[in-house]
Amino acid sequence: MFVTANEVSNRVFSVRSEIGSEMHRLMGELYPICRSITGNGVRETLRIISRHIPIKIHNVPTGAQVFDWTVPKEWNIKDAYIKNARGERVVDFQQSNLHVVNYSVPINKRIALPELKAHLHTLPDHPDWVPYRTSYYNENWGFCIAHNQFSALTDEEYEVCIDSSLELGSLTYGEYFLRGESSDEVLISCHVCHPSLANDNLSGIALAAFLGKHMSATRNRYSYRFLFIPGTIGSITWLSQHECETAQIKHGLVLASVGAGDKLTYKKSREGDAEIDRATFNVLRHAGGSYEIREFSPYGYDERQFCSPGLNLPVGCLMRTPNGQFPEYHTSADNMNFVQPSLLAESFDVAVRILHVIESNGVYINRNPKCEPQLGKRGLYHAIGGIESDIDELAMLWVLNLSDGDHSLLDIAERSGCKFDAIKRAADRLLSHDLLKQAV
Amino acid sequence: MFVTANEVSNRVFSVRSEIGSEMHRLMGELYPICRSITGNGVRETLRIISRHIPIKIHNVPTGAQVFDWTVPKEWNIKDAYIKNARGERVVDFQQSNLHVVNYSVPINKRIALPELKAHLHTLPDHPDWVPYRTSYYNENWGFCIAHNQFSALTDEEYEVCIDSSLELGSLTYGEYFLRGESSDEVLISCHVCHPSLANDNLSGIALAAFLGKHMSATRNRYSYRFLFIPGTIGSITWLSQHECETAQIKHGLVLASVGAGDKLTYKKSREGDAEIDRATFNVLRHAGGSYEIREFSPYGYDERQFCSPGLNLPVGCLMRTPNGQFPEYHTSADNMNFVQPSLLAESFDVAVRILHVIESNGVYINRNPKCEPQLGKRGLYHAIGGIESDIDELAMLWVLNLSDGDHSLLDIAERSGCKFDAIKRAADRLLSHDLLKQAV
Amino acid sequence: MFVTANEVSNRVFSVRSEIGSEMHRLMGELYPICRSITGNGVRETLRIISRHIPIKIHNVPTGAQVFDWTVPKEWNIKDAYIKNARGERVVDFQQSNLHVVNYSVPINKRIALPELKAHLHTLPDHPDWVPYRTSYYNENWGFCIAHNQFSALTDEEYEVCIDSSLELGSLTYGEYFLRGESSDEVLISCHVCHPSLANDNLSGIALAAFLGKHMSATRNRYSYRFLFIPGTIGSITWLSQHECETAQIKHGLVLASVGAGDKLTYKKSREGDAEIDRATFNVLRHAGGSYEIREFSPYGYDERQFCSPGLNLPVGCLMRTPNGQFPEYHTSADNMNFVQPSLLAESFDVAVRILHVIESNGVYINRNPKCEPQLGKRGLYHAIGGIESDIDELAMLWVLNLSDGDHSLLDIAERSGCKFDAIKRAADRLLSHDLLKQAV
Repeated sequence: MFVTANEVSNRVFSVRSEIGSEMHRLMGELYPICRSITGNGVRETLRIISRHIPIKIHNVPTGAQVFDWTVPKEWNIKDAYIKNARGERVVDFQQSNLHVVNYSVPINKRIALPELKAHLHTLPDHPDWVPYRTSYYNENWGFCIAHNQFSALTDEEYEVCIDSSLELGSLTYGEYFLRGESSDEVLISCHVCHPSLANDNLSGIALAAFLGKHMSATRNRYSYRFLFIPGTIGSITWLSQHECETAQIKHGLVLASVGAGDKLTYKKSREGDAEIDRATFNVLRHAGGSYEIREFSPYGYDERQFCSPGLNLPVGCLMRTPNGQFPEYHTSADNMNFVQPSLLAESFDVAVRILHVIESNGVYINRNPKCEPQLGKRGLYHAIGGIESDIDELAMLWVLNLSDGDHSLLDIAERSGCKFDAIKRAADRLLSHDLLKQAV
Repeated sequence: MFVTANEVSNRVFSVRSEIGSEMHRLMGELYPICRSITGNGVRETLRIISRHIPIKIHNVPTGAQVFDWTVPKEWNIKDAYIKNARGERVVDFQQSNLHVVNYSVPINKRIALPELKAHLHTLPDHPDWVPYRTSYYNENWGFCIAHNQFSALTDEEYEVCIDSSLELGSLTYGEYFLRGESSDEVLISCHVCHPSLANDNLSGIALAAFLGKHMSATRNRYSYRFLFIPGTIGSITWLSQHECETAQIKHGLVLASVGAGDKLTYKKSREGDAEIDRATFNVLRHAGGSYEIREFSPYGYDERQFCSPGLNLPVGCLMRTPNGQFPEYHTSADNMNFVQPSLLAESFDVAVRILHVIESNGVYINRNPKCEPQLGKRGLYHAIGGIESDIDELAMLWVLNLSDGDHSLLDIAERSGCKFDAIKRAADRLLSHDLLKQAV
Repeated sequence: MFVTANEVSNRVFSVRSEIGSEMHRLMGELYPICRSITGNGVRETLRIISRHIPIKIHNVPTGAQVFDWTVPKEWNIKDAYIKNARGERVVDFQQSNLHVVNYSVPINKRIALPELKAHLHTLPDHPDWVPYRTSYYNENWGFCIAHNQFSALTDEEYEVCIDSSLELGSLTYGEYFLRGESSDEVLISCHVCHPSLANDNLSGIALAAFLGKHMSATRNRYSYRFLFIPGTIGSITWLSQHECETAQIKHGLVLASVGAGDKLTYKKSREGDAEIDRATFNVLRHAGGSYEIREFSPYGYDERQFCSPGLNLPVGCLMRTPNGQFPEYHTSADNMNFVQPSLLAESFDVAVRILHVIESNGVYINRNPKCEPQLGKRGLYHAIGGIESDIDELAMLWVLNLSDGDHSLLDIAERSGCKFDAIKRAADRLLSHDLLKQAV
């Protein structure tokens, strides 16, 4: 019934296109919802995710102290618009939830153009796009519109209406815990606080959800914790309330913006040479596509919090397009057309491979450390001499040579330049011939 | 009355051209003097310097044992010439003190051309230039002339006269000690033993003098010791007589040849990653001009002595043109036209910045090490979300993330790729909001 | 009578072409012999080598257990052929011993073409060349022929005959031990198991033999052990029977394929920065020719065994063409025309220089560690100042500066970028002036 991670991953690697479409479909379902760092948008999002994996929903009340922060009031919104003097909705929340500055306080009044303009946000460099703006911790209101529309606004009186509420409530997040053989954990985290933004937000959610589903089908060494949390305040809240559990997090990945962009981008953990960093590097360098490895910086997604100095968790960030470095970032152009099923599938595939390395890595001891053991008599070496060894034989020689207790399989893969899978396969063959034993 | 190093440096950074001219003027005043490793030329030089900073003059008697060396006899010279058969001065010390091999013993006789030639030094590759030559530790005499003049010498009898004296006396050096808050010292050293050579010698003297003047106007953490010493024997003498004090030297710079050449050159201390090395690297990489960092080698200026293995002081060497690597080096072409006020000013500016880093560096502790503190509620973060952070916010995030007690501000500047000043400014803002504290 | 390594090497460096011809002549004498991992071919080979150096012959009986391996039966061969239906020898062992798969069991029967083909080995990419194949540990028989001949074989009945024997006997190897001042050893190893292959086998044998001869003429610090052994099983046998002695092996080189190819190739020991690795790197970078340094890998020649994890000896491999990476490798094209006396001589020269570094390296202490000692008064420094130091003076300054007990002469050569010889010469001069002493 259960299959090993290895078998599953092989199976899944052959169904890429299908998984990409499924992820894309889930994202499409989530796209219209007006999410924020609190409120019903997040709850609705988590409800839909729970059709795929049985997440638990947690609510943390407004006012809860979480480290240096306080859980804010809950924000909800029903409608918003700007009407011109003729009563026509010239800006309409019903058409795009990006039009309202997220966390805007309720307002309903008539104002002149100059006053209105002080509350409008645009992107002069991309005059057709609507920006995404927030004002979480500063009570304010505003609208986001295309710069072309902004320029065309005539000098008349407008009616602005934001039918929102900012009240005592709670911060909501979802958690999916998958128990493995060990209580050591792998943390997978994504943010669920952006409204209609596809790549930056929904792609990470979809990847985390399908990764959770995938890992639930294998027998795993590690326990897995998937967090679906609002950015910044969500990770701070979770970390503040689960400080003790963080000691069990041995590896972690923040997933974000994995649906667009030619190359994969990995941002290292603060440590910089954590196992997750090295596992990801090995997978990316052998994945065949282009990729970029970035050093840690304290700016970006929730790795900012996981990698704060008092926690310093080994958590990296897997992206395609890095935050802030693609023009569509935080604009209406980051829509469902911007993300592609094939890229989602590739991101999924790479994430599965990374977890496979983490699951399979280990330290072994060569039982015949003096000279090579005779592989030939065990059928592990070509019978006719004088020809070169193939990759499988080379991988066995590497494993034998470096299995001195100081090198993990990942170390051996790195030093030999081999794909981790080849090294793992070699170790398995050697183990089955009693040429290797597990280090204690 | 006192201003902090920071304020002063900002002020000074805006008066570059003025300081360059002042340095150039001092050099012009010192240029005609016939200096050597001992004698009245050095004393006259120190007297002029003391108009700018109150240096103390020290005399160490001939015969004093200084490590493996002995302070030599004192050399002085009044006149020297070569006259041709018609009694005309064809080579004249009064026209250039480079014409006499420095430390030549007195001589006055008539000799034939072949014998004379054995005592003449020229530069065949630069036939119009006069070389600078010395014979400190080997009693000898000689003249330095242009190779063109050498080739044109006719076969006749010449009168050679060197009206010099080599007698018991002393080695003279100047020292300017500026007490700071701490007894830990920064050593600034330059050589004062070259006669009319502008870049190699006078530029370093001018920079040390004006740096001393500059630092005397600020309240400093470190004490500063400025040495104006003859090369090699001077540093050996000082080190031999102040061996105990060397333990207090925490950082040091030898200044030499800082008035000519497009780029700045820094030669690392023997340690190679001393704070002075890293401070200088940070300043140079952000200074906007071209620069070169060289590894330590045991050849060059007095860093040879400061970095000898039994002392191994963290002393680097700030130059523009490295010794021996510009054609004008040790020739009459290293004159007042060769050096430029603007380059002197840039060297001054860089030196001030380096000392500013040394003065301002420190280790701080993030008081909220678990997750980021909420910068927004303290007015330290932009109120509207969704847009990217600016350099000041990034610098604060870097300081918070790495202020774990293991990283100094300089470490943080290096790892973040930021200019030290930006990191320092961020630390100051965080300190003033109680988000940081000084490490003990 | 005895000369130092230094003097000898200087002498030998000037007789390159002669030594190359002598090596080539020895190889020509050994070329026709049908060697294998056991048998009379190895014995005959060792007998010829013993005309140059007094090697001891060792026989280890069939069935001896050597770590995970067993010494195999002894193989000998008198004749072998394939006759066509007309009784003509179309493949003839007498013409080339490569025609028979090494270690083929005896056979004598008539077979049809299809059955014969299953026992034929060819090189389709090099249709005129005959491959070299073996079947040591799997009882089998076969012939190696040119692919062109293979393609032209007509469908008739053939007589195959291999007049070989596979019987109880022994594995034979040669050992030349040269006692030095210390019981610490340098191991030089080459394989003697390939039949008519010139570069891969004979060139290494010739280099080891002439190196042995060369080192026997000098007074050496180290003892030298030269092994002439069958590949893999030979080193395993020796290591298994001399495990205790391996503790004395401080440096080692496997020599192979040193007679062809433009550049020299050095493969590092498993340690990667052993003294032999660094010595070889210093020699190669200053040798003036092109070279390549390769990281250790557990595939290649007998360094595979010497560098197995339970032994981890500091043994590198000096080659020109790396195994498996030149088309002629393990084919009839690796013949006496493929190797060149001048390349053999250069390989010899480099090997001697490497051993010279190993012999001469050491740690010294500067007796005047505080500031430079006064070299001038000892005649070690140019008398006229103002000019630049030459390489010999610089080398002395480097030795003085880094002889703090932590740096060997080889370390100093590496850090200074100097040739080891220049550093060694400087140390000798400083020693003779009592400015240096040997570290204890």
